[in-house]
This record gives sequence, structure tokens and C-alpha cells, in this order.
Amino acid sequence: MPRHPDEDNHPVATGLAKKLVDAHQARQDLVFWSAWFCPFNQRIWMALEERNIPYQYHEVNPYKKEKDFLEVNPLGLVPALTDKGRALYESDVLVEYLEDKYPPSKEHPPIFPTDIYEKSWARINIQHITKDIIPHYFKLQQAQETEDQQQALEEFYKGLRTLVDRVKLPYFAGEQFTAVDMSLAPFVRRFYSLEEHRGFDGEKALGSKWVQDCHADIFSERESLKNTTSEKEYYAPLLERYLKDEAQSEVAKATRSGKKLP
Amino acid sequence: MPRHPDEDNHPVATGLAKKLVDAHQARQDLVFWSAWFCPFNQRIWMALEERNIPYQYHEVNPYKKEKDFLEVNPLGLVPALTDKGRALYESDVLVEYLEDKYPPSKEHPPIFPTDIYEKSWARINIQHITKDIIPHYFKLQQAQETEDQQQALEEFYKGLRTLVDRVKLPYFAGEQFTAVDMSLAPFVRRFYSLEEHRGFDGEKALGSKWVQDCHADIFSERESLKNTTSEKEYYAPLLERYLKDEAQSEVAKATRSGKKLP
Ligand SMILES: N[C@@H](CCC(=O)N[C@@H](CS)C(=O)NCC(=O)O)C(=O)O
Ligand SMILES: N[C@@H](CCC(=O)N[C@@H](CS)C(=O)NCC(=O)O)C(=O)O
Repeated sequence: MPRHPDEDNHPVATGLAKKLVDAHQARQDLVFWSAWFCPFNQRIWMALEERNIPYQYHEVNPYKKEKDFLEVNPLGLVPALTDKGRALYESDVLVEYLEDKYPPSKEHPPIFPTDIYEKSWARINIQHITKDIIPHYFKLQQAQETEDQQQALEEFYKGLRTLVDRVKLPYFAGEQFTAVDMSLAPFVRRFYSLEEHRGFDGEKALGSKWVQDCHADIFSERESLKNTTSEKEYYAPLLERYLKDEAQSEVAKATRSGKKLP
Repeated sequence: MPRHPDEDNHPVATGLAKKLVDAHQARQDLVFWSAWFCPFNQRIWMALEERNIPYQYHEVNPYKKEKDFLEVNPLGLVPALTDKGRALYESDVLVEYLEDKYPPSKEHPPIFPTDIYEKSWARINIQHITKDIIPHYFKLQQAQETEDQQQALEEFYKGLRTLVDRVKLPYFAGEQFTAVDMSLAPFVRRFYSLEEHRGFDGEKALGSKWVQDCHADIFSERESLKNTTSEKEYYAPLLERYLKDEAQSEVAKATRSGKKLP
């Protein structure tokens, strides 16, 4: 196999995330196949932390497509979980698995609303984030021409606005921090790069301080987000490959060719 | 509003489906906002039937985008449900809602495996159908040039093959008819059109009789599929608009421009 152009990322978590990795080396039934830098991955890491679920951390370089990893997820993507060796993947499926396997209790706080209707409403909004926010986030990041950047920015604002209009504050569903927040938070955590390089200004465009607040105050103060985040400088070379439209990840390739994300 | 080019569909269900519609006119808390011809919609209709859930049938023409419908689903798509007036949409979310609202019981048979791991595995495969089978189904249907049809056919086979390789027989999960079968069955029900017009030959290409069997025997004998299906001749003009690449539905437009489906 030729080397994957993205496989030379810094290999391990740093800062607070490294502490968490170190604390989760002991053998457990539930193994978290994780790449420290991946925002989809961080959703599940946050869910494990928020819900106080015992897990063993296992760092993977998803670009290497090693045999043991492809056996876990034939799509070759993190996040993935194995539970007593049985493999599952897709961040939104994993969140549901953890919910089913560890039903909400005092020990394992829920990350979905208890009300059945509100739980489905949360799922609709997670889908909205997946379909109508994240693809534009990547498009904006990779767009090179001013015109393309402008268009991606408009679509990105549009997707965010729909969500912002539904926010109950301080979190999406009100006081409870839910899987909806978790779906978006890792990306919000990376918005600074779009502010610096793509003229993204959430507050101005959305007429709402929510997105910005999340970034500056609410989300960033959330322990599960803080503790799963590595040191800023280590994200820089990765983000730069996207900003220069050089990244060769599945997401980057799909974005470049206008296809649906994996 | 100018008339939508697709709004002159036959307005109501026929045949067995009409009988079912007639039997579900009484007022109920749960209202099913349905278009008789839509395969995504049929998934939910099947789930309601399989699970023996009380519902009121409400026919909508989704192309008309009438105000009351857009208030239920701002995306303007069927299927949708209202439960005591509270609205939900997205077929895969609706299936989960019905599961949460009517937990599996003798009266309401489950359509997910009981085993927690298998339930997540079912969800992964529903996602696979949504992301890696259905888009190719529509591409194949709308492709006009031989070369494009050939390419769509290959991709369609590829998506189907992954699923077929995982089938436990007779249904996806074995003896139990699950939401995975329900996700695909309404499309399988329409494969005859691809056989006639696009050279689709599931058995030959997949080295498996499953897809064909499903169509010919297993799925088609399933009451919930049969009873939610209208008379064949009424689908013809709709399918023809896709085959000629004239349809202007959101799905057709997304397929034409190579974008992700709504
Ligand atoms: N739909 C997947 C997307 C996951 C994903 O794209 N992960 C990236 C890392 S951020 C990956 O593993 N990429 C490997 C590759 O592109 O080859 C999910 O939500 O879990
Ligand atoms: N993602 C949706 C797709 C539903 C869908 O595309 N429905 C079509 C009818 S088959 C629709 O309502 N189309 C209206 C339009 O295109 O304007 C789901 O799974 O429920």
C-alpha cells in the first residue's frame, strides 16, 4: 500500500486529552477506536465521558487502513466501538448504542431528553446537523475561490440559522446537555479557524450569540469537550491541509467532488 | 405559487392500499401524513401496519407544499407524523419514534431485533441503504446516457452486494422482519421498472437470489407491503417521469445535480 498523504498527523493526543487517554488504558469490554483529532470521533468521546461509561481508549490512524481496523469498520472511519469484540460504527448509531446499553440512571446520566417526542426531535436535529450544517462547514473550509467561499458561507449560515432558531438555551434542549449539542460542539470548537481564514462571523450573520457563546463560553466550559480536546497547535497542520484543499480524507474528497459525505 | 410540475399525480391510493386508507379514517391522536406513491413513505406505513399501531391516514400531495403541511414538516417531505398535534418527520426517525412510543409487546410486535447489539447493527444497515443504495437507485432511474446508466448500475450493485452479503435469510436479520427490510422493500417493490428499462438483473449481478426473491416471493408476500401498495398502473406515469429524467421532486433534482438526497 502506498502511504496515505494524511497519515503523518501527530500520532497521539496531547494536553488534557492525553490525560484522559492515559486514564483509560486498562482493559475493558468496551473499546473506543479513536483518532484524537477527529470531530466526529469527539462526539462519541464526549458521550462516553458525559455518561460516565467505562471504556478502553485505543488510538487509530484511520488513514492507514490497517487490517484490524478495517475488520472493525469496513468503511475505515473513526469513531468505532467494539464491545466484547463485536464491532459498531457511525457516530450517530454509536450514541444510540450507548443509550440502549447503559440506560439512563444516576450513574449514567442521559444525553437524550426523557420525553419520547423530544428525543425524536433531538434525532431530527442531529440529522439536520449531519445533512445541512457539516457538509457546508467542510465546503467552506476547502473552498479556494472567493465566490465559492461566499456561497459556502451563505449555506453554512442557513443551516446554522435553522438550528439556532430552535435552541431553547442555554443548550439546544434547554438546561440539559444532549446529543444534539454533542453533535455540533466539536465543530464549533474548530470555528476559530473559519473566523480567521474564511470571514465566518456567527454572531453577526445569525443575529444570535448562541453559536459564538457556545464556542466562547458555554460549550468550551463543558468538561467533556475540554477534556477531549488536545493542544491547539497540534490541530493547526491538519486544519491547514483542509484550508489549502490538500487533505485526502474521505470527507475532503467527497467535499471536493460535491458528493455526500461518508 | 406556480403549479409544481409533479403535482398532477393520481391523487389517492387505489387497490389494496385504498382499502387500508378507508379503514383508517377515524380520528386518532396519531396522524400519518402520507403520499400513497412514495417509497420512503411506505416504510412508515409498513411499520404502522406491522406493529399494529392505531393511526389516522391523511393523504398529502407533497409537491403542493400547502401551508398546513409545511407547518408539520418544514422540509416539505412525506412521510410525517403528528401525535396530538406535535409533528415529526424523516422516515428513519419516525421508525424509532414508533418504537419508543409503543414499546415491543404482544399487541405491538417489534420491528427491531431485541438484542441491543443487533439493534445497532440494524441501524448501521439502514444507514447503508440510505447512503449507499437509494442514491444509486435514483441515479440509475434518471440516467439517460448508456455510460451513465452503466456506472449507476455498477454502484447500485455494489451497494446491494454489501447488504446481500450480510443477510441472514429469509429476512435481513433472519426469521424476524425488521426495519432493515422495511427500509429497502418499497424500493425492491419498484425494481421491475429497472429490470424493464435499465437492464437491472439482481440475481445475475449479485450471485444471490435474495433481492430477486424478496421481490418475487418473500417481500411481496408480506402483508404490510402488499396492503400498502396501490395498483401497478398508477405508478407507471410517476416512474416514467423519473425514467425520462423529467421529475422535479427534491430527490430528482438532487440526483440530477449529483447532490446528497433530501
Ligand atoms: N459518518 C461518520 C464519519 C466519520 C469520519 O469521517 N471520520 C474521519 C476522521 S474525522 C475518518 O475516519 N477518516 C478516514 C479517511 O477519510 O480515510 C461518522 O459520523 O462516524
Ligand atoms: N429523507 C426523507 C425523504 C422523503 C422524500 O423524499 N419524500 C418525497 C416523496 S417520495 C417527497 O415528499 N417529495 C416532495 C418533493 O420532492 O417536493 C425520508 O426518509 O423521510
